[in-house]
Amino acid sequence: MSVVAQLAIFPLDKGASLSDYVARVSTIIRESGLTNQLGPMGTAIEGEFPQVMATVAKAFEALAPDCDRVYMTLAVDYKKGRENGLRGKVESVEETLRRH
Amino acid sequence: MSVVAQLAIFPLDKGASLSDYVARVSTIIRESGLTNQLGPMGTAIEGEFPQVMATVAKAFEALAPDCDRVYMTLAVDYKKGRENGLRGKVESVEETLRRH
Amino acid sequence: MSVVAQLAIFPLDKGASLSDYVARVSTIIRESGLTNQLGPMGTAIEGEFPQVMATVAKAFEALAPDCDRVYMTLAVDYKKGRENGLRGKVESVEETLRRH
Amino acid sequence: MSVVAQLAIFPLDKGASLSDYVARVSTIIRESGLTNQLGPMGTAIEGEFPQVMATVAKAFEALAPDCDRVYMTLAVDYKKGRENGLRGKVESVEETLRRH
Repeated sequence: MSVVAQLAIFPLDKGASLSDYVARVSTIIRESGLTNQLGPMGTAIEGEFPQVMATVAKAFEALAPDCDRVYMTLAVDYKKGRENGLRGKVESVEETLRRH
Repeated sequence: MSVVAQLAIFPLDKGASLSDYVARVSTIIRESGLTNQLGPMGTAIEGEFPQVMATVAKAFEALAPDCDRVYMTLAVDYKKGRENGLRGKVESVEETLRRH
Repeated sequence: MSVVAQLAIFPLDKGASLSDYVARVSTIIRESGLTNQLGPMGTAIEGEFPQVMATVAKAFEALAPDCDRVYMTLAVDYKKGRENGLRGKVESVEETLRRH
Repeated sequence: MSVVAQLAIFPLDKGASLSDYVARVSTIIRESGLTNQLGPMGTAIEGEFPQVMATVAKAFEALAPDCDRVYMTLAVDYKKGRENGLRGKVESVEETLRRH
């Protein structure tokens, strides 16, 4: 079952600048081979549910060992039969907006 | 205080296709004049905290009256002194990735 | 329109121990007069949507001025005609479990 | 690495009353053997990260096959060396409030 997900994960004990940690997570997501898109509030990921969960776990395991505290939020949206959801979800709304 | 936020809001009693409702929310966000970006898992919005909250409230009030159930998630990220965060957050990570 | 919400809000630049900041937020929520319940991952709040949003804003404004970075997540669940949702939602699930 | 998490998961195509689906998820979480606590906006779960993720996956797989659309949010809070976090996090805030 293919899902569209969004992951935000970051340490709470490393100060206000988090780019290094977000980049570390981005590298793992890109190496997963899953379709993904870095956004201002997290990274959207599309793929089969187990592969998405495995990638999320890898991201957590890449941060936790050298952090005293890590916070993560994951949202998952599953729609039966959906393909190409990462682009399709946005395009569907844009098309609806054009029709009005 | 300027923040970067992400809003996802949708009815739970209207079936699996939500584009009409997401488009209604998008229209409100675009008419707010706040910098925003529609993504696969929500809309990122940047602006002064009170204006972002007012826009979120408008979106809720545009859905709730003709829905039996509405679910909303909002994430807000405030960083002191940040400007142009909607683009800047992504660019900062991309730049970090290039340096490695 | 009455809603059940959950708020989590904390600084990212104050290290791994956050009780002082969560307590500050709790005080504001308790002083709001809204029904609320402190939980391990956030505080559940029940009330009219505008009052809940006003309380969330007060919480943000109580943290942001002396923090360099603040992260907040808010989830809102509106169900038409629901009263006493903070207890009712849990009791409804417990009752369903007993019937099976 | 032990974490405190919160899971909310529900179908979007089954109307406004969700107790049956939330009860199905609760049963899976309770059968996992992990410490957990049903709340108004989700279920808090404590355990080793891989076991928590496996339980979340089971919950998703228990809903998705007979739903056309499923939405899930998961928050995870890892703090180095923490034990008994489900109770401890709330108690720590309550204690801070008493001291003030």
